[in-house]
Amino acid sequence: MVFWNLKTTRLEAFKPGIMSRAEIGVNLVMVYMEIDPGREDTGHEHPFDQVGVILEGRMEMFVGAERKVLDRGDAYFIASGQRHGWRTFNQKVKLLDVSQTQKR
Amino acid sequence: MVFWNLKTTRLEAFKPGIMSRAEIGVNLVMVYMEIDPGREDTGHEHPFDQVGVILEGRMEMFVGAERKVLDRGDAYFIASGQRHGWRTFNQKVKLLDVSQTQKR
Repeated sequence: MVFWNLKTTRLEAFKPGIMSRAEIGVNLVMVYMEIDPGREDTGHEHPFDQVGVILEGRMEMFVGAERKVLDRGDAYFIASGQRHGWRTFNQKVKLLDVSQTQKR
Repeated sequence: MVFWNLKTTRLEAFKPGIMSRAEIGVNLVMVYMEIDPGREDTGHEHPFDQVGVILEGRMEMFVGAERKVLDRGDAYFIASGQRHGWRTFNQKVKLLDVSQTQKR
């Protein structure tokens, strides 16, 4: 799909508490996600960059030693290899995330 | 920079009519752009995917044979090799764009 209207995009269950739609290209993966309140990823890392922007709601994210509460319009750049995680609060969070297509 | 507040991010001249901030990682390039009204890219292509989301304003974009007016919250996925271009109307457009780090 070339153009996405994120208000009407049909989502699928991705992980517990996360609905998403993903498009996998030659080298990029774009994922629109809606994350339920009260969810957490305690941290992980991978050998490729990951970036994104908060479209609605508020979440806390940490990347390496930096930790920040992100609101709508805040973006993040997780450099390859940096440990990172996040948690949501009492509201749903909508975000667009981009990382690398995994070689199979 | 890990976390970007796009309201206070300091921008640099990128092309005529475009102010931007870019972060270049191992494999991803994230660029926040503010494009002046009345600008146009008549079209080009490249051998890697490019994706992004409109954060403010309205622009027309074409990708291959598809053409659409994009508003805030609309996203695009330009597959590798697809010819694409855009034009802005009478207002400034703010967007976040992600593509691939170019090998040197």
